[in-house]
Amino acid sequence: MLNKETRFHIVGLGLMGGSIAQGLKRCGCHVTAMDISEDSIQYALEQGWIDDGSTHDNDFLAESDFIISGLYPSILIEWIKRHKDDFTSGTIITDVTGVKSKLLMHIQNMLPAGIEFVGSHPMAGRETSGVRFSNPDLFLPANYIIVPTEKNSKEAVETVRAFAKLLKFHHIAELSIDEHDKMIGFLSQLTHVIAVTLMNTHDNTHLVEYTGDSFRDLTRIAKINEHLWTELFLLNKENLLHEITAFQNELDHFKEVLSQEDTEEMKRLFVQSTKRRKYFDRKDTL
Amino acid sequence: MLNKETRFHIVGLGLMGGSIAQGLKRCGCHVTAMDISEDSIQYALEQGWIDDGSTHDNDFLAESDFIISGLYPSILIEWIKRHKDDFTSGTIITDVTGVKSKLLMHIQNMLPAGIEFVGSHPMAGRETSGVRFSNPDLFLPANYIIVPTEKNSKEAVETVRAFAKLLKFHHIAELSIDEHDKMIGFLSQLTHVIAVTLMNTHDNTHLVEYTGDSFRDLTRIAKINEHLWTELFLLNKENLLHEITAFQNELDHFKEVLSQEDTEEMKRLFVQSTKRRKYFDRKDTL
Repeated sequence: MLNKETRFHIVGLGLMGGSIAQGLKRCGCHVTAMDISEDSIQYALEQGWIDDGSTHDNDFLAESDFIISGLYPSILIEWIKRHKDDFTSGTIITDVTGVKSKLLMHIQNMLPAGIEFVGSHPMAGRETSGVRFSNPDLFLPANYIIVPTEKNSKEAVETVRAFAKLLKFHHIAELSIDEHDKMIGFLSQLTHVIAVTLMNTHDNTHLVEYTGDSFRDLTRIAKINEHLWTELFLLNKENLLHEITAFQNELDHFKEVLSQEDTEEMKRLFVQSTKRRKYFDRKDTL
Repeated sequence: MLNKETRFHIVGLGLMGGSIAQGLKRCGCHVTAMDISEDSIQYALEQGWIDDGSTHDNDFLAESDFIISGLYPSILIEWIKRHKDDFTSGTIITDVTGVKSKLLMHIQNMLPAGIEFVGSHPMAGRETSGVRFSNPDLFLPANYIIVPTEKNSKEAVETVRAFAKLLKFHHIAELSIDEHDKMIGFLSQLTHVIAVTLMNTHDNTHLVEYTGDSFRDLTRIAKINEHLWTELFLLNKENLLHEITAFQNELDHFKEVLSQEDTEEMKRLFVQSTKRRKYFDRKDTL
């Protein structure tokens, strides 16, 4: 399990990697980091967010106990392939990737015995990227999801849970690969598709001066990292297509109700959405 | 024009009416109000938000100079019909209704010469209703839209503009009926349809513990007053159906792009939505 001697290593020091580094340092942990950007490493060193850093791919790997990948999915797979024999037995590796099905088993099957990869997903983010925007307070209201598989030991899963506790996540849960990716397809990916699509429906920039909070809130996530999210959507294509279709069917129903001026059904839909949405109010704002 | 002697009267003392009353009182204006709820009138009197109040429909009408309707559209029409001969010549009436085409000309045609109705739309609101939630600070970041018609004099439009300035709206604009209703169909009504529809797509309340800010922000407006919004949607049916269809076409395109794994087009869509959305960032958060 984790203790004061545990050596943490972060691979990819961006928004998530940097926030994790800061969160661990707050607890007095020993943290090293690798990033291809010399500037990111220097900045984190100056801020005191890491104890040591490098732009060399395999520095720190052999002496680390707990490694966190902040890499994009495609890069993570390449990185594991390249370094699968560079870790010391007993090392636990986890990640931050938002989709699991096409990634997790593939990675676990590549690693030799003694090196355990536990998939996890910190459900926190911002519309900005890069280590300069990192902030461990992102985690305080957020969910941390661990996605154990048959390849994982109970002990390794508990170690990752302890790691999430160090970072002070609001809620830590465990889901299967299928449960996780289905949930993400609806709660996160479909919402991003909707925001992007609404923004792309018209060139609406001339309407800026008339915009209220509704439109602003709904389209906040239309500011989106095109490289990361294209990867995430393709990795969860079947689930996401299924969710888009379900949403389209419900939208067709609403359109029919409006077209027919079926006021009773329209009111029923509003009452239902109001009732359901109340469950999603933050406890602290109730 | 407005001055210290102007007698303001508010009909319907709910969230909007109450906020307007408070905003006017802050400027030292004389304010009376009518509401069917004795409790609402008493509460506003106790708070010092109005100088006098009544539950009788026609009290204060003859002696008022500037009347603001905070009524639902259907009730507003009935109210005008009932009282069109109860006003004193020179009285200006305005409203807060979110749709204009099927309402404004109808009202203006009912009123006798000398009584001028200037349509307006304060683009501010909350998910709660009732005078107890009213707050004139709602107006500070918000747009106020005046919808003049050929029936309106320049002087009356300027008086309504002065009224909006008293309430300290961030931005005051003028739009034609068609421009207003088209804009509202897209910016406000379509966004509400999307939020309601997403909430109704699944019974998703078991997902509460996994929800991030994206889903919360996108569905905030799925808590919706079913009586008011059913009226507003039906009054703007053609524009809203048109906007839903445009959004559906764009969503079909996205689905095709995902289905075909056309990563270049997907990235182009993300870059476009990001670029457009940046125009909608609040100036104070840039």
